[in-house]
Amino acid sequence: MSTSAHSTEVQGLVAREVERQLAAFREEMEGKLAAVRERTVDDAATIVVFSGDLDKVLAGFVIATGAAAAGLETSMFFTFWGLSALKKKGAAAGPKNIMEKMFSVMTPASSESLGTSKMSFFGMGAVMLRKMMKDKQIATLEELMAMARDLNVKMIACTMSMDAMGVSKEELLDGLTYGGVATYMADAVRSRVTLFI
Amino acid sequence: MSTSAHSTEVQGLVAREVERQLAAFREEMEGKLAAVRERTVDDAATIVVFSGDLDKVLAGFVIATGAAAAGLETSMFFTFWGLSALKKKGAAAGPKNIMEKMFSVMTPASSESLGTSKMSFFGMGAVMLRKMMKDKQIATLEELMAMARDLNVKMIACTMSMDAMGVSKEELLDGLTYGGVATYMADAVRSRVTLFI
Amino acid sequence: MSTSAHSTEVQGLVAREVERQLAAFREEMEGKLAAVRERTVDDAATIVVFSGDLDKVLAGFVIATGAAAAGLETSMFFTFWGLSALKKKGAAAGPKNIMEKMFSVMTPASSESLGTSKMSFFGMGAVMLRKMMKDKQIATLEELMAMARDLNVKMIACTMSMDAMGVSKEELLDGLTYGGVATYMADAVRSRVTLFI
Repeated sequence: MSTSAHSTEVQGLVAREVERQLAAFREEMEGKLAAVRERTVDDAATIVVFSGDLDKVLAGFVIATGAAAAGLETSMFFTFWGLSALKKKGAAAGPKNIMEKMFSVMTPASSESLGTSKMSFFGMGAVMLRKMMKDKQIATLEELMAMARDLNVKMIACTMSMDAMGVSKEELLDGLTYGGVATYMADAVRSRVTLFI
Repeated sequence: MSTSAHSTEVQGLVAREVERQLAAFREEMEGKLAAVRERTVDDAATIVVFSGDLDKVLAGFVIATGAAAAGLETSMFFTFWGLSALKKKGAAAGPKNIMEKMFSVMTPASSESLGTSKMSFFGMGAVMLRKMMKDKQIATLEELMAMARDLNVKMIACTMSMDAMGVSKEELLDGLTYGGVATYMADAVRSRVTLFI
Repeated sequence: MSTSAHSTEVQGLVAREVERQLAAFREEMEGKLAAVRERTVDDAATIVVFSGDLDKVLAGFVIATGAAAAGLETSMFFTFWGLSALKKKGAAAGPKNIMEKMFSVMTPASSESLGTSKMSFFGMGAVMLRKMMKDKQIATLEELMAMARDLNVKMIACTMSMDAMGVSKEELLDGLTYGGVATYMADAVRSRVTLFI
Protein backbone atom coordinates (compact mmCIF):
# COMPACT_ATOMS: atom_id res chain seq x y z
CA MET A 1 0.00 0.00 0.00
CA SER A 2 1.43 3.39 -0.97
CA THR A 3 1.51 6.21 1.51
CA SER A 4 -0.89 8.36 -0.51
CA ALA A 5 -3.36 5.51 -0.83
CA HIS A 6 -2.94 4.99 2.88
CA SER A 7 -3.53 8.68 3.52
CA THR A 8 -6.70 8.67 1.48
CA GLU A 9 -7.88 5.68 3.42
CA VAL A 10 -7.20 7.44 6.73
CA GLN A 11 -9.02 10.56 5.56
CA GLY A 12 -12.07 8.50 4.78
CA LEU A 13 -11.83 6.70 8.10
CA VAL A 14 -11.50 9.96 10.01
CA ALA A 15 -14.34 11.54 8.09
CA ARG A 16 -16.68 8.67 8.97
CA GLU A 17 -15.55 8.53 12.61
CA VAL A 18 -15.75 12.30 13.10
CA GLU A 19 -19.19 12.30 11.55
CA ARG A 20 -20.29 9.44 13.81
CA GLN A 21 -18.96 10.91 17.03
CA LEU A 22 -19.91 14.45 16.12
CA ALA A 23 -23.53 13.64 15.42
CA ALA A 24 -24.18 12.88 19.07
CA PHE A 25 -21.89 15.65 20.29
CA ARG A 26 -23.41 18.23 17.97
CA GLU A 27 -26.90 17.35 19.14
CA GLU A 28 -25.82 17.68 22.76
CA MET A 29 -24.11 21.03 22.16
CA GLU A 30 -27.03 22.38 20.13
CA GLY A 31 -29.30 21.44 23.02
CA LYS A 32 -27.11 23.19 25.54
CA LEU A 33 -26.80 26.27 23.33
CA ALA A 34 -30.57 26.37 22.89
CA ALA A 35 -31.03 26.16 26.67
CA VAL A 36 -28.68 29.11 27.20
CA ARG A 37 -30.31 31.00 24.32
CA GLU A 38 -33.66 30.75 26.07
CA ARG A 39 -32.12 32.70 28.92
CA THR A 40 -31.15 35.62 26.69
CA VAL A 41 -32.88 38.77 25.50
CA ASP A 42 -33.81 40.42 22.22
CA ASP A 43 -32.61 43.85 21.16
CA ALA A 44 -35.82 45.32 22.47
CA ALA A 45 -37.01 48.01 24.91
CA THR A 46 -40.39 48.29 26.62
CA ILE A 47 -41.66 51.42 28.36
CA VAL A 48 -44.78 51.60 30.53
CA VAL A 49 -46.17 55.13 30.33
CA PHE A 50 -48.35 55.28 33.44
CA SER A 51 -48.01 59.02 33.98
CA GLY A 52 -50.00 61.58 32.08
CA ASP A 53 -47.64 64.45 33.01
CA LEU A 54 -46.23 66.30 30.00
CA ASP A 55 -42.66 66.16 31.31
CA LYS A 56 -42.81 62.41 31.99
CA VAL A 57 -44.53 61.57 28.69
CA LEU A 58 -41.87 63.68 26.96
CA ALA A 59 -39.13 61.73 28.74
CA GLY A 60 -40.86 58.52 27.67
CA PHE A 61 -40.80 59.53 24.01
CA VAL A 62 -37.22 60.85 24.18
CA ILE A 63 -36.10 57.47 25.56
CA ALA A 64 -38.31 55.48 23.17
CA THR A 65 -37.03 57.30 20.08
CA GLY A 66 -33.48 57.02 21.45
CA ALA A 67 -33.95 53.28 21.90
CA ALA A 68 -35.42 52.86 18.42
CA ALA A 69 -32.61 54.97 16.91
CA ALA A 70 -30.12 52.67 18.67
CA GLY A 71 -31.68 49.77 16.79
CA LEU A 72 -33.93 48.41 19.53
CA GLU A 73 -37.41 47.11 18.75
CA THR A 74 -39.31 49.49 21.01
CA SER A 75 -42.79 49.37 22.48
CA MET A 76 -44.65 51.78 24.75
CA PHE A 77 -47.57 50.64 26.87
CA PHE A 78 -49.90 53.53 27.75
CA THR A 79 -51.88 52.80 30.88
CA PHE A 80 -53.82 54.73 33.55
CA TRP A 81 -53.13 58.49 33.14
CA GLY A 82 -50.69 57.77 30.31
CA LEU A 83 -53.65 56.97 28.09
CA SER A 84 -54.35 60.73 27.83
CA ALA A 85 -51.23 61.16 25.71
CA LEU A 86 -52.88 59.03 23.02
CA LYS A 87 -56.11 61.04 22.85
CA LYS A 88 -56.99 62.41 19.44
CA LYS A 89 -57.41 66.18 19.50
CA GLY A 90 -61.06 67.20 19.30
CA ALA A 91 -62.41 63.66 18.95
CA ALA A 92 -66.03 63.34 19.99
CA ALA A 93 -66.25 61.25 23.12
CA GLY A 94 -68.53 58.22 22.99
CA PRO A 95 -71.46 57.81 25.37
CA LYS A 96 -70.18 57.85 28.94
CA ASN A 97 -71.72 57.19 32.31
CA ILE A 98 -71.47 59.80 35.06
CA MET A 99 -68.18 58.45 36.49
CA GLU A 100 -66.66 58.21 33.02
CA LYS A 101 -67.70 61.80 32.35
CA MET A 102 -66.01 62.95 35.56
CA PHE A 103 -62.81 61.16 34.57
CA SER A 104 -63.05 62.62 31.10
CA VAL A 105 -63.37 66.16 32.44
CA MET A 106 -60.59 65.67 34.95
CA THR A 107 -58.05 64.16 32.55
CA PRO A 108 -56.36 65.99 29.62
CA ALA A 109 -58.23 66.08 26.30
CA SER A 110 -55.13 65.25 24.20
CA SER A 111 -51.32 65.30 24.31
CA GLU A 112 -51.51 69.06 23.80
CA SER A 113 -53.19 69.63 27.16
CA LEU A 114 -51.01 67.49 29.44
CA GLY A 115 -49.75 69.24 32.61
CA THR A 116 -46.36 68.86 34.25
CA SER A 117 -45.49 66.78 37.33
CA LYS A 118 -43.74 69.73 38.98
CA MET A 119 -44.24 73.48 38.94
CA SER A 120 -47.80 73.23 37.76
CA PHE A 121 -48.99 76.73 38.77
CA PHE A 122 -52.34 76.14 37.10
CA GLY A 123 -50.79 74.91 33.87
CA MET A 124 -47.96 77.49 33.72
CA GLY A 125 -45.36 74.70 34.06
CA ALA A 126 -46.45 73.00 30.86
CA VAL A 127 -46.67 76.30 28.99
CA MET A 128 -43.17 77.26 30.18
CA LEU A 129 -41.74 73.83 29.38
CA ARG A 130 -43.21 73.95 25.88
CA LYS A 131 -42.00 77.53 25.27
CA MET A 132 -38.51 76.70 26.55
CA MET A 133 -38.28 73.64 24.34
CA LYS A 134 -39.43 75.66 21.36
CA ASP A 135 -36.85 78.40 22.05
CA LYS A 136 -34.13 75.74 22.30
CA GLN A 137 -35.44 74.00 19.19
CA ILE A 138 -35.97 70.79 21.14
CA ALA A 139 -38.59 68.50 19.59
CA THR A 140 -42.13 68.97 20.91
CA LEU A 141 -44.15 66.04 22.21
CA GLU A 142 -46.11 65.89 18.96
CA GLU A 143 -42.88 65.92 16.91
CA LEU A 144 -41.45 63.18 19.12
CA MET A 145 -44.62 61.13 18.67
CA ALA A 146 -44.33 61.49 14.89
CA MET A 147 -40.65 60.52 15.11
CA ALA A 148 -41.60 57.49 17.21
CA ARG A 149 -44.05 56.40 14.51
CA ASP A 150 -41.42 56.82 11.81
CA LEU A 151 -39.04 54.67 13.85
CA ASN A 152 -41.73 51.97 14.17
CA VAL A 153 -42.13 52.38 17.92
CA LYS A 154 -45.15 50.24 18.83
CA MET A 155 -47.72 52.17 20.89
CA ILE A 156 -50.05 49.98 22.91
CA ALA A 157 -53.20 51.42 24.48
CA CYS A 158 -54.05 49.55 27.68
CA THR A 159 -57.51 48.10 27.13
CA MET A 160 -58.14 47.68 30.87
CA SER A 161 -57.52 51.41 31.39
CA MET A 162 -59.73 52.25 28.40
CA ASP A 163 -62.47 50.13 29.93
CA ALA A 164 -62.00 51.56 33.43
CA MET A 165 -62.06 55.17 32.22
CA GLY A 166 -64.67 54.64 29.53
CA VAL A 167 -62.35 55.67 26.69
CA SER A 168 -63.25 54.30 23.23
CA LYS A 169 -60.93 53.57 20.28
CA GLU A 170 -62.55 56.47 18.41
CA GLU A 171 -61.17 58.91 20.97
CA LEU A 172 -57.60 57.65 20.50
CA LEU A 173 -55.02 58.22 17.76
CA ASP A 174 -54.95 55.98 14.70
CA GLY A 175 -52.44 53.18 14.23
CA LEU A 176 -52.32 52.03 17.85
CA THR A 177 -52.03 48.47 19.12
CA TYR A 178 -54.56 47.42 21.78
CA GLY A 179 -53.81 45.04 24.61
CA GLY A 180 -53.63 44.36 28.31
CA VAL A 181 -50.89 43.47 30.74
CA ALA A 182 -50.29 40.12 28.99
CA THR A 183 -49.51 41.98 25.74
CA TYR A 184 -47.12 44.25 27.62
CA MET A 185 -45.48 41.33 29.41
CA ALA A 186 -44.87 39.42 26.16
CA ASP A 187 -42.74 42.35 24.97
CA ALA A 188 -41.16 43.07 28.36
CA VAL A 189 -39.76 39.59 29.07
CA ARG A 190 -37.57 39.70 26.00
CA SER A 191 -36.43 43.32 26.42
CA ARG A 192 -33.02 44.67 27.40
CA VAL A 193 -34.51 47.85 28.78
CA THR A 194 -37.75 47.91 30.81
CA LEU A 195 -38.92 51.19 32.32
CA PHE A 196 -41.99 52.41 34.19
CA ILE A 197 -42.61 56.09 33.72
CA MET B 1 0.05 -7.55 8.65
CA SER B 2 -3.04 -7.95 6.51
CA THR B 3 -4.85 -4.91 5.21
CA SER B 4 -8.02 -5.68 7.15
CA ALA B 5 -6.12 -6.15 10.41
CA HIS B 6 -4.34 -2.90 9.64
CA SER B 7 -7.61 -1.20 8.92
CA THR B 8 -9.12 -2.37 12.21
CA GLU B 9 -6.08 -1.09 14.04
CA VAL B 10 -6.30 2.30 12.32
CA GLN B 11 -10.02 2.43 12.91
CA GLY B 12 -9.39 2.05 16.64
CA LEU B 13 -6.72 4.71 16.46
CA VAL B 14 -9.05 7.10 14.66
CA ALA B 15 -11.90 6.46 17.09
CA ARG B 16 -9.65 7.17 20.07
CA GLU B 17 -8.13 10.26 18.47
CA VAL B 18 -11.52 11.72 17.60
CA GLU B 19 -12.70 10.97 21.12
CA ARG B 20 -9.58 12.56 22.60
CA GLN B 21 -9.83 15.73 20.56
CA LEU B 22 -13.56 15.99 21.10
CA ALA B 23 -13.09 15.60 24.86
CA ALA B 24 -10.77 18.61 24.91
CA PHE B 25 -13.11 20.56 22.67
CA ARG B 26 -16.08 19.58 24.81
CA GLU B 27 -14.36 20.86 27.93
CA GLU B 28 -13.50 24.09 26.18
CA MET B 29 -17.07 24.54 24.91
CA GLU B 30 -18.57 23.72 28.30
CA GLY B 31 -16.38 26.42 29.80
CA LYS B 32 -17.37 28.93 27.17
CA LEU B 33 -21.04 28.01 27.50
CA ALA B 34 -20.86 28.41 31.28
CA ALA B 35 -19.27 31.84 30.79
CA VAL B 36 -22.06 32.90 28.44
CA ARG B 37 -24.71 31.41 30.75
CA GLU B 38 -23.45 33.66 33.54
CA ARG B 39 -24.39 36.58 31.33
CA THR B 40 -28.01 35.45 31.03
CA VAL B 41 -31.15 36.04 33.07
CA ASP B 42 -33.76 33.96 34.86
CA ASP B 43 -37.45 34.07 34.06
CA ALA B 44 -37.95 36.58 36.83
CA ALA B 45 -39.39 40.07 37.38
CA THR B 46 -38.61 42.52 40.17
CA ILE B 47 -40.68 45.58 40.99
CA VAL B 48 -39.69 48.33 43.43
CA VAL B 49 -42.85 49.84 44.89
CA PHE B 50 -41.59 53.20 46.15
CA SER B 51 -44.87 55.04 45.74
CA GLY B 52 -47.71 54.82 48.23
CA ASP B 53 -50.29 56.19 45.76
CA LEU B 54 -53.27 53.89 45.22
CA ASP B 55 -53.09 54.13 41.44
CA LYS B 56 -49.37 53.36 41.34
CA VAL B 57 -49.60 50.50 43.86
CA LEU B 58 -52.50 49.12 41.79
CA ALA B 59 -50.37 49.31 38.64
CA GLY B 60 -47.61 47.52 40.54
CA PHE B 61 -49.89 44.64 41.46
CA VAL B 62 -51.46 44.44 37.99
CA ILE B 63 -47.98 44.10 36.48
CA ALA B 64 -46.76 41.73 39.22
CA THR B 65 -49.73 39.36 38.84
CA GLY B 66 -49.39 39.64 35.07
CA ALA B 67 -45.72 38.70 35.31
CA ALA B 68 -46.44 35.78 37.65
CA ALA B 69 -49.27 34.60 35.39
CA ALA B 70 -46.82 34.67 32.48
CA GLY B 71 -44.63 32.25 34.43
CA LEU B 72 -42.10 34.70 35.85
CA GLU B 73 -40.78 34.33 39.38
CA THR B 74 -41.92 37.73 40.65
CA SER B 75 -40.84 39.81 43.60
CA MET B 76 -42.01 43.21 44.84
CA PHE B 77 -39.83 45.37 47.06
CA PHE B 78 -41.89 47.83 49.13
CA THR B 79 -39.82 50.80 50.19
CA PHE B 80 -40.39 54.39 51.37
CA TRP B 81 -44.10 55.32 50.89
CA GLY B 82 -44.76 51.94 49.30
CA LEU B 83 -44.48 50.36 52.73
CA SER B 84 -47.97 51.75 53.54
CA ALA B 85 -49.52 49.26 51.10
CA LEU B 86 -48.35 46.44 53.38
CA LYS B 87 -49.86 47.85 56.56
CA LYS B 88 -52.29 45.56 58.35
CA LYS B 89 -55.70 47.17 58.82
CA GLY B 90 -56.28 48.23 62.41
CA ALA B 91 -52.97 46.89 63.70
CA ALA B 92 -51.86 48.55 66.94
CA ALA B 93 -48.77 50.62 66.27
CA GLY B 94 -45.75 49.86 68.43
CA PRO B 95 -44.14 52.53 70.62
CA LYS B 96 -43.02 55.41 68.44
CA ASN B 97 -40.98 58.54 69.03
CA ILE B 98 -42.40 61.93 68.07
CA MET B 99 -41.04 61.89 64.50
CA GLU B 100 -42.28 58.34 63.96
CA LYS B 101 -45.72 59.40 65.22
CA MET B 102 -45.79 62.30 62.76
CA PHE B 103 -44.87 59.96 59.90
CA SER B 104 -47.49 57.50 61.07
CA VAL B 105 -50.23 60.14 61.10
CA MET B 106 -49.14 61.52 57.74
CA THR B 107 -48.95 58.16 55.90
CA PRO B 108 -51.91 55.86 55.10
CA ALA B 109 -53.00 53.39 57.78
CA SER B 110 -53.37 50.45 55.35
CA SER B 111 -53.86 49.64 51.65
CA GLU B 112 -57.48 50.72 52.04
CA SER B 113 -56.55 54.31 52.77
CA LEU B 114 -54.02 54.99 50.03
CA GLY B 115 -54.62 58.17 47.99
CA THR B 116 -54.02 58.69 44.27
CA SER B 117 -51.08 60.42 42.56
CA LYS B 118 -53.42 62.58 40.50
CA MET B 119 -56.86 64.11 41.05
CA SER B 120 -56.61 63.84 44.80
CA PHE B 121 -59.33 66.38 45.77
CA PHE B 122 -58.99 65.47 49.42
CA GLY B 123 -59.23 61.75 48.75
CA MET B 124 -61.98 61.91 46.11
CA GLY B 125 -59.61 60.52 43.45
CA ALA B 126 -59.10 57.28 45.35
CA VAL B 127 -62.81 56.92 46.10
CA MET B 128 -63.67 57.50 42.43
CA LEU B 129 -60.96 55.14 41.20
CA ARG B 130 -62.19 52.43 43.56
CA LYS B 131 -65.84 52.95 42.60
CA MET B 132 -65.05 52.94 38.89
CA MET B 133 -63.06 49.74 39.21
CA LYS B 134 -65.90 48.15 41.16
CA ASP B 135 -68.46 49.19 38.54
CA LYS B 136 -66.23 47.73 35.81
CA GLN B 137 -65.63 44.60 37.86
CA ILE B 138 -61.90 45.24 37.79
CA ALA B 139 -60.05 43.61 40.69
CA THR B 140 -59.58 45.83 43.74
CA LEU B 141 -56.16 46.34 45.30
CA GLU B 142 -56.99 43.86 48.06
CA GLU B 143 -58.15 41.27 45.48
CA LEU B 144 -54.98 41.83 43.46
CA MET B 145 -52.88 41.41 46.61
CA ALA B 146 -54.63 38.09 47.34
CA MET B 147 -54.09 37.04 43.72
CA ALA B 148 -50.41 37.98 44.01
CA ARG B 149 -50.09 35.74 47.09
CA ASP B 150 -51.80 32.86 45.27
CA LEU B 151 -49.35 33.28 42.40
CA ASN B 152 -46.43 33.18 44.85
CA VAL B 153 -45.37 36.76 44.25
CA LYS B 154 -42.70 37.47 46.86
CA MET B 155 -43.42 40.66 48.83
CA ILE B 156 -40.38 42.17 50.50
CA ALA B 157 -40.76 44.88 53.15
CA CYS B 158 -37.74 47.21 53.08
CA THR B 159 -36.20 47.00 56.54
CA MET B 160 -34.35 50.31 56.13
CA SER B 161 -37.67 52.07 55.47
CA MET B 162 -39.29 50.27 58.42
CA ASP B 163 -36.45 51.46 60.61
CA ALA B 164 -36.54 55.02 59.25
CA MET B 165 -40.31 55.35 59.70
CA GLY B 166 -40.50 53.39 62.93
CA VAL B 167 -42.76 50.69 61.47
CA SER B 168 -42.66 47.29 63.24
CA LYS B 169 -43.35 43.84 61.76
CA GLU B 170 -46.54 43.67 63.88
CA GLU B 171 -48.00 46.58 61.89
CA LEU B 172 -47.44 44.80 58.58
CA LEU B 173 -49.28 41.96 56.81
CA ASP B 174 -48.34 38.36 57.52
CA GLY B 175 -46.25 36.26 55.18
CA LEU B 176 -43.86 39.00 54.07
CA THR B 177 -40.15 38.67 53.39
CA TYR B 178 -37.90 41.25 55.10
CA GLY B 179 -34.76 42.66 53.59
CA GLY B 180 -32.78 45.66 52.42
CA VAL B 181 -31.40 46.83 49.10
CA ALA B 182 -29.03 43.83 48.92
CA THR B 183 -32.03 41.46 49.08
CA TYR B 184 -33.70 43.45 46.32
CA MET B 185 -30.55 43.53 44.21
CA ALA B 186 -30.07 39.74 44.45
CA ASP B 187 -33.47 39.31 42.75
CA ALA B 188 -33.07 42.24 40.36
CA VAL B 189 -29.76 41.19 38.76
CA ARG B 190 -31.26 37.98 37.46
CA SER B 191 -34.58 39.47 36.31
CA ARG B 192 -35.86 40.04 32.79
CA VAL B 193 -38.11 42.87 33.94
CA THR B 194 -37.02 45.47 36.50
CA LEU B 195 -39.35 48.36 37.28
CA PHE B 196 -39.42 51.25 39.76
CA ILE B 197 -42.91 52.39 40.58
CA MET C 1 9.07 0.37 7.79
CA SER C 2 8.58 -0.99 11.29
CA THR C 3 5.13 -1.22 12.76
CA SER C 4 5.90 1.30 15.52
CA ALA C 5 7.32 3.82 13.06
CA HIS C 6 4.28 3.23 10.91
CA SER C 7 2.02 3.66 13.94
CA THR C 8 3.62 6.96 14.90
CA GLU C 9 3.26 8.20 11.37
CA VAL C 10 -0.37 7.15 11.19
CA GLN C 11 -1.07 8.65 14.63
CA GLY C 12 0.27 11.99 13.44
CA LEU C 13 -1.75 11.73 10.28
CA VAL C 14 -4.91 10.83 12.15
CA ALA C 15 -4.42 13.60 14.73
CA ARG C 16 -3.97 16.23 12.03
CA GLU C 17 -6.87 14.93 10.00
CA VAL C 18 -9.20 14.88 13.02
CA GLU C 19 -8.10 18.39 13.87
CA ARG C 20 -8.67 19.51 10.30
CA GLN C 21 -12.12 18.00 10.12
CA LEU C 22 -13.07 19.36 13.54
CA ALA C 23 -11.94 22.87 12.64
CA ALA C 24 -15.07 23.49 10.61
CA PHE C 25 -17.27 22.24 13.44
CA ARG C 26 -15.39 24.36 15.97
CA GLU C 27 -15.83 27.41 13.82
CA GLU C 28 -19.53 26.70 13.49
CA MET C 29 -19.96 26.26 17.25
CA GLU C 30 -17.89 29.35 18.06
CA GLY C 31 -20.11 31.29 15.69
CA LYS C 32 -23.27 30.03 17.34
CA LEU C 33 -21.87 30.75 20.78
CA ALA C 34 -20.92 34.27 19.73
CA ALA C 35 -24.45 34.80 18.40
CA VAL C 36 -25.93 33.73 21.74
CA ARG C 37 -23.40 35.86 23.63
CA GLU C 38 -24.59 38.93 21.73
CA ARG C 39 -27.98 38.32 23.29
CA THR C 40 -26.63 38.49 26.84
CA VAL C 41 -26.04 41.31 29.32
CA ASP C 42 -23.17 42.73 31.33
CA ASP C 43 -23.11 42.94 35.10
CA ALA C 44 -24.35 46.48 34.89
CA ALA C 45 -27.18 48.66 36.19
CA THR C 46 -28.50 51.92 34.73
CA ILE C 47 -30.77 54.34 36.57
CA VAL C 48 -32.53 57.32 35.01
CA VAL C 49 -33.02 59.98 37.69
CA PHE C 50 -35.79 62.08 36.19
CA SER C 51 -37.23 63.21 39.50
CA GLY C 52 -35.79 66.02 41.59
CA ASP C 53 -37.65 64.98 44.75
CA LEU C 54 -35.38 64.33 47.73
CA ASP C 55 -37.02 61.01 48.56
CA LYS C 56 -36.77 59.73 45.00
CA VAL C 57 -33.20 60.92 44.48
CA LEU C 58 -32.34 59.24 47.82
CA ALA C 59 -33.93 55.98 46.61
CA GLY C 60 -31.91 56.33 43.41
CA PHE C 61 -28.64 56.59 45.30
CA VAL C 62 -29.54 53.80 47.74
CA ILE C 63 -30.20 51.49 44.78
CA ALA C 64 -27.15 52.71 42.83
CA THR C 65 -24.76 52.18 45.74
CA GLY C 66 -26.44 48.83 46.44
CA ALA C 67 -25.93 47.81 42.81
CA ALA C 68 -22.30 48.94 42.83
CA ALA C 69 -21.69 47.15 46.14
CA ALA C 70 -23.14 44.01 44.54
CA GLY C 71 -20.44 44.27 41.88
CA LEU C 72 -22.48 45.88 39.11
CA GLU C 73 -20.98 48.56 36.89
CA THR C 74 -23.51 51.28 37.71
CA SER C 75 -24.47 54.46 35.92
CA MET C 76 -27.01 57.15 36.77
CA PHE C 77 -28.45 59.45 34.12
CA PHE C 78 -29.70 62.73 35.60
CA THR C 79 -32.30 64.34 33.38
CA PHE C 80 -35.12 66.92 33.68
CA TRP C 81 -35.70 67.73 37.37
CA GLY C 82 -33.10 65.15 38.40
CA LEU C 83 -30.42 67.53 37.18
CA SER C 84 -30.97 69.62 40.35
CA ALA C 85 -29.40 66.88 42.45
CA LEU C 86 -26.10 67.53 40.67
CA LYS C 87 -26.03 71.28 41.29
CA LYS C 88 -22.98 72.57 43.10
CA LYS C 89 -23.88 74.43 46.28
CA GLY C 90 -23.49 78.18 45.90
CA ALA C 91 -22.13 78.03 42.36
CA ALA C 92 -22.61 81.27 40.45
CA ALA C 93 -25.12 80.72 37.69
CA GLY C 94 -24.00 81.65 34.16
CA PRO C 95 -25.84 84.24 32.08
CA LYS C 96 -29.46 83.14 31.66
CA ASN C 97 -32.35 84.37 29.60
CA ILE C 98 -35.67 85.17 31.28
CA MET C 99 -37.12 81.64 30.93
CA GLU C 100 -33.88 80.10 32.21
CA LYS C 101 -33.97 82.45 35.19
CA MET C 102 -37.54 81.41 35.99
CA PHE C 103 -36.56 77.73 35.82
CA SER C 104 -33.53 78.45 37.97
CA VAL C 105 -35.63 80.15 40.65
CA MET C 106 -38.27 77.45 40.54
CA THR C 107 -35.88 74.46 40.78
CA PRO C 108 -33.70 73.57 43.81
CA ALA C 109 -30.31 75.25 44.10
CA SER C 110 -28.45 72.04 45.07
CA SER C 111 -29.02 68.56 46.49
CA GLU C 112 -29.43 70.18 49.92
CA SER C 113 -32.58 72.00 48.88
CA LEU C 114 -34.53 69.20 47.17
CA GLY C 115 -38.14 68.77 48.36
CA THR C 116 -40.05 65.53 48.80
CA SER C 117 -42.64 63.97 46.45
CA LYS C 118 -45.12 63.54 49.30
CA MET C 119 -45.92 65.48 52.45
CA SER C 120 -44.30 68.63 51.22
CA PHE C 121 -45.98 71.10 53.60
CA PHE C 122 -43.81 73.93 52.27
CA GLY C 123 -40.59 71.93 52.63
CA MET C 124 -41.39 70.33 56.02
CA GLY C 125 -41.38 66.85 54.43
CA ALA C 126 -37.76 67.14 53.37
CA VAL C 127 -36.71 68.57 56.73
CA MET C 128 -38.50 65.73 58.55
CA LEU C 129 -37.09 63.08 56.24
CA ARG C 130 -33.57 64.42 56.74
CA LYS C 131 -33.99 64.67 60.53
CA MET C 132 -35.43 61.14 60.75
CA MET C 133 -32.59 59.70 58.68
CA LYS C 134 -30.08 61.52 60.87
CA ASP C 135 -31.70 60.19 64.07
CA LYS C 136 -31.63 56.67 62.63
CA GLN C 137 -28.06 57.13 61.44
CA ILE C 138 -29.11 56.44 57.87
CA ALA C 139 -26.77 57.95 55.29
CA THR C 140 -27.73 61.42 54.04
CA LEU C 141 -28.04 62.17 50.34
CA GLU C 142 -24.64 63.87 50.37
CA GLU C 143 -23.07 60.85 52.12
CA LEU C 144 -24.71 58.51 49.61
CA MET C 145 -23.41 60.65 46.75
CA ALA C 146 -19.88 60.44 48.18
CA MET C 147 -20.30 56.68 48.61
CA ALA C 148 -21.49 56.42 45.01
CA ARG C 149 -18.35 58.21 43.84
CA ASP C 150 -16.15 55.89 45.92
CA LEU C 151 -17.90 52.90 44.33
CA ASN C 152 -17.24 54.35 40.86
CA VAL C 153 -20.88 54.95 40.06
CA LYS C 154 -20.89 56.91 36.81
CA MET C 155 -23.03 60.06 37.03
CA ILE C 156 -24.16 61.41 33.68
CA ALA C 157 -25.65 64.89 33.39
CA CYS C 158 -28.17 65.02 30.54
CA THR C 159 -26.90 67.64 28.11
CA MET C 160 -30.32 68.10 26.52
CA SER C 161 -31.79 69.00 29.92
CA MET C 162 -28.85 71.33 30.66
CA ASP C 163 -29.48 73.05 27.36
CA ALA C 164 -33.26 73.23 27.88
CA MET C 165 -32.93 74.66 31.38
CA GLY C 166 -29.91 76.82 30.67
CA VAL C 167 -27.68 75.05 33.20
CA SER C 168 -23.92 75.26 32.57
CA LYS C 169 -21.19 72.78 33.57
CA GLU C 170 -19.88 75.36 36.05
CA GLU C 171 -23.12 75.07 38.05
CA LEU C 172 -22.77 71.30 38.37
CA LEU C 173 -20.58 69.09 40.57
CA ASP C 174 -17.11 68.09 39.42
CA GLY C 175 -16.29 64.69 37.99
CA LEU C 176 -19.51 64.20 36.03
CA THR C 177 -19.91 62.59 32.63
CA TYR C 178 -21.91 64.56 30.05
CA GLY C 179 -24.17 63.00 27.45
CA GLY C 180 -27.59 62.62 25.91
CA VAL C 181 -30.05 59.80 25.47
CA ALA C 182 -27.63 57.92 23.18
CA THR C 183 -25.04 57.86 25.99
CA TYR C 184 -27.69 56.58 28.39
CA MET C 185 -28.91 53.96 25.91
CA ALA C 186 -25.40 52.59 25.31
CA ASP C 187 -25.21 51.74 29.02
CA ALA C 188 -28.84 50.64 29.34
CA VAL C 189 -28.85 48.02 26.55
CA ARG C 190 -26.18 45.99 28.30
CA SER C 191 -27.60 46.34 31.81
CA ARG C 192 -29.28 43.74 34.01
CA VAL C 193 -31.19 46.39 35.93
CA THR C 194 -32.77 49.43 34.24
CA LEU C 195 -34.87 51.79 36.32
CA PHE C 196 -36.60 55.14 35.78
CA ILE C 197 -36.94 57.13 38.96
